[in-house]
Amino acid sequence: MVSLIDDEAIAIIERNADRILDEIGMEFRGDLETLDLFKIHGARVDGERVRFDPGWCRDKIKTAPSVFTQHARNPERSIQIGGNAQVYAPSFGPPFVHDMDGGRRYATLDDFRNITKLHHQLGPVNHSGGVVVEPVDVPVPLRHLHMAHAHLTMNDKPFMGAVTAPERARDTIEMCRLVMGADFVDRNCVLYSVVNTNAPLVMDETMLWALKEYARAGQCTVVSPFVLGGAMSPVSVAATLAQVLAEVMASVALIQIIRPGAPAAFGTFFSPISLKTGAPTFGTPEGTQFQMCAKTLADRLGLPFHSVGGLTASKVPDAQAGYESQAQLMGAALAGVNFIIHATGCLEGLLTTGYEKIVMDADRCSAMQQFVKGVDFSEAAQAMDAFFEVEPGGHFLGATHTQENFESAFWMGEMSDNGTYEQWHAEGGLWQQERASARVKQLLDDYQPPEIDTGIREALDDFVARRSREIEGENR
Amino acid sequence: MVSLIDDEAIAIIERNADRILDEIGMEFRGDLETLDLFKIHGARVDGERVRFDPGWCRDKIKTAPSVFTQHARNPERSIQIGGNAQVYAPSFGPPFVHDMDGGRRYATLDDFRNITKLHHQLGPVNHSGGVVVEPVDVPVPLRHLHMAHAHLTMNDKPFMGAVTAPERARDTIEMCRLVMGADFVDRNCVLYSVVNTNAPLVMDETMLWALKEYARAGQCTVVSPFVLGGAMSPVSVAATLAQVLAEVMASVALIQIIRPGAPAAFGTFFSPISLKTGAPTFGTPEGTQFQMCAKTLADRLGLPFHSVGGLTASKVPDAQAGYESQAQLMGAALAGVNFIIHATGCLEGLLTTGYEKIVMDADRCSAMQQFVKGVDFSEAAQAMDAFFEVEPGGHFLGATHTQENFESAFWMGEMSDNGTYEQWHAEGGLWQQERASARVKQLLDDYQPPEIDTGIREALDDFVARRSREIEGENR
Repeated sequence: MVSLIDDEAIAIIERNADRILDEIGMEFRGDLETLDLFKIHGARVDGERVRFDPGWCRDKIKTAPSVFTQHARNPERSIQIGGNAQVYAPSFGPPFVHDMDGGRRYATLDDFRNITKLHHQLGPVNHSGGVVVEPVDVPVPLRHLHMAHAHLTMNDKPFMGAVTAPERARDTIEMCRLVMGADFVDRNCVLYSVVNTNAPLVMDETMLWALKEYARAGQCTVVSPFVLGGAMSPVSVAATLAQVLAEVMASVALIQIIRPGAPAAFGTFFSPISLKTGAPTFGTPEGTQFQMCAKTLADRLGLPFHSVGGLTASKVPDAQAGYESQAQLMGAALAGVNFIIHATGCLEGLLTTGYEKIVMDADRCSAMQQFVKGVDFSEAAQAMDAFFEVEPGGHFLGATHTQENFESAFWMGEMSDNGTYEQWHAEGGLWQQERASARVKQLLDDYQPPEIDTGIREALDDFVARRSREIEGENR
Repeated sequence: MVSLIDDEAIAIIERNADRILDEIGMEFRGDLETLDLFKIHGARVDGERVRFDPGWCRDKIKTAPSVFTQHARNPERSIQIGGNAQVYAPSFGPPFVHDMDGGRRYATLDDFRNITKLHHQLGPVNHSGGVVVEPVDVPVPLRHLHMAHAHLTMNDKPFMGAVTAPERARDTIEMCRLVMGADFVDRNCVLYSVVNTNAPLVMDETMLWALKEYARAGQCTVVSPFVLGGAMSPVSVAATLAQVLAEVMASVALIQIIRPGAPAAFGTFFSPISLKTGAPTFGTPEGTQFQMCAKTLADRLGLPFHSVGGLTASKVPDAQAGYESQAQLMGAALAGVNFIIHATGCLEGLLTTGYEKIVMDADRCSAMQQFVKGVDFSEAAQAMDAFFEVEPGGHFLGATHTQENFESAFWMGEMSDNGTYEQWHAEGGLWQQERASARVKQLLDDYQPPEIDTGIREALDDFVARRSREIEGENR
């Protein structure tokens, strides 16, 4: 909806990206097959550095769909990615959790499961996410099995695939085949996985392997350069846009070489670093400006756009968390981001997910979803009759139009206290994080798992058990 | 910048407003002179009800300037109102204050002065405001004298005039004449005062008198219908837009009849009420949608647009306050609101101003000011040389471009903690409201009053003393 980049600036950024790809190129490390593929298709390969003639990447990207469906195991939860659709998804990757009772601590598999249960119940969140927290009590080589198992049994929304090793990507795909049918998975997108470039202008071996696995399986790969602006890109929005565009174009071109038509998306994660302390910052003007411009560049490539929602550097669910998360989320909503990752739970710049923050953020996702629907100017909404019914100086509470429409007329948040001071005080004078703490407990108490066929559930359990034994054997 | 209303919808709303003014009309209560003025100029007066032929109001409004300057006593602090300018101003009207040490309590003149001192020092706030809090320890008939005295001596930014009685408006103008020169005040706008209609479709005696005083003196009057949507307007954005447009058009037409060319502005205050509890709500999607549409309607009339910033229903400076205030403020910034009132301090839907909230909000005003500047696409910002200087996989921290630009490259907040968890924890693990509490104390300790000529200061003091005696005599 909102763009901050005009045609002249678009031409500048696209020309700079083309020049970067042509004269500097991008490094694809540790994978000869990728380099061979690029060579066969006409890119200029020199060691691990690959350079591209202007227009080459754009041409390859043309086969990527601009809109596609990610299927959930519950078809009612399947989502459209691209076009006018906006998906709101949980934070990805935090090793810590925070709650009001226990403070900050390393996350466990129990936390992973609890968070997956919460998101199952939170209506405004359309996705179960990926690594909603790192389950640090599970050995690294086994984590992907337990995470996919939780996503597939405790939540019936779509989810993300593992990207940390090719066999983990294959395991995740296999688990989807057990649940949704091998045939269905072969012919449809059921996984949406995020691959980060190592800005500037590098994709490493691990990410390349994941990208190749998912592309071959026809599953969606989002290429999302992870950029701490000023360190991993030059210290400006304009320069970072060119760099990110270059990295995404080369990487999505690779996906399309591997399997023309495989779903892909243009992702961004841009955090300007504090040039005083070197720390990443969130909810800043440049973060949103960057996002709004990048959306326009993605539109120009015909790719769905994936970017960040409620990020904050705050360690706790305080006002800083509220201000920063709302700024980032509202920017994403207004930019028309198609897949808003980190929409819920973020604290400490994604090092932590907050239990209370999840339910607080979900309420703001709901507000943004209402906002982007726009204004109803229908004859019913104009309510001209009401003006003739109510005299000047009167009130509309009893008017026919009000009575007919009051229940659905205005958005109402679940986590905001709008009552009087006296009422609020009488109810304990709770700050939002305290009300959220009670809500989290209520949701976990009320949780009912989505239905699953017993045979499928057993097959999943068996798969996790068997693969665990195999992996433990390999690592012994 | 962002509008949510297209040409077709604009035509609908304008037609509905015209029809409301033509067929229902607006009541101007308790002032025969106003009714006579309307009659003389061709409006249809029936008792206190005034009806307007379509186009009549628009025609009268044409003499209002679309851009003007409000002069501060320090010329460097004078502000442009209208065009692309955005002014950020304090909350208006709260009877209570809140701080972390003392909680919520009735505000006093000392609070008024402290808040005026804070805003003098907060760079992102361009205005000293009006009734920043109600000084409830001062008798009502004397408050305006002490408030104007504080604005004129403790802060050198522009401020707002009293609207609670015509003699109070005259006193405020007189005090400006003492400080800025009678001649200057007669020829320039030095006061910006907000007049609320009593929605729906009423302007009362008190507001009419204030409007007339300021209009005659060539001072700016903002006509801002105060609307709790669903009670004081029909329960929809579209209907409320038509009602507010009607009220503003009739009232600004009156200003222009009184003194053609007198500065005026189109104001809005729209809070959807919770149809469950009847309580006003803030930071909601409809609030921002309304504001963005109304800005377009104001542009169509060639009037500067005045609307709300950081409103929240929260009683305390918690995450709810952060989310809601940021949503409302970002909406205002993106809508291009020319005068953003309630940008700092709001708690409890304007019943309370929070000391800590003021400094927290000011930081977000700064962020929004940076945001609306847009993106720099200059050759320097493109930084193409940096890509040739830094290899793929390298980092830009030491690059020439970074070294030359790092100090001013990215916006940095003063109230956000961006450091590591360990650093934050070592510094006491303070939540934002606790850091803000320390900052408030520091600002009040560091406060230095702006310079003022001794003779002028004495004249002001004498005026307040003399008028206090006169008013106390009248009220005895």
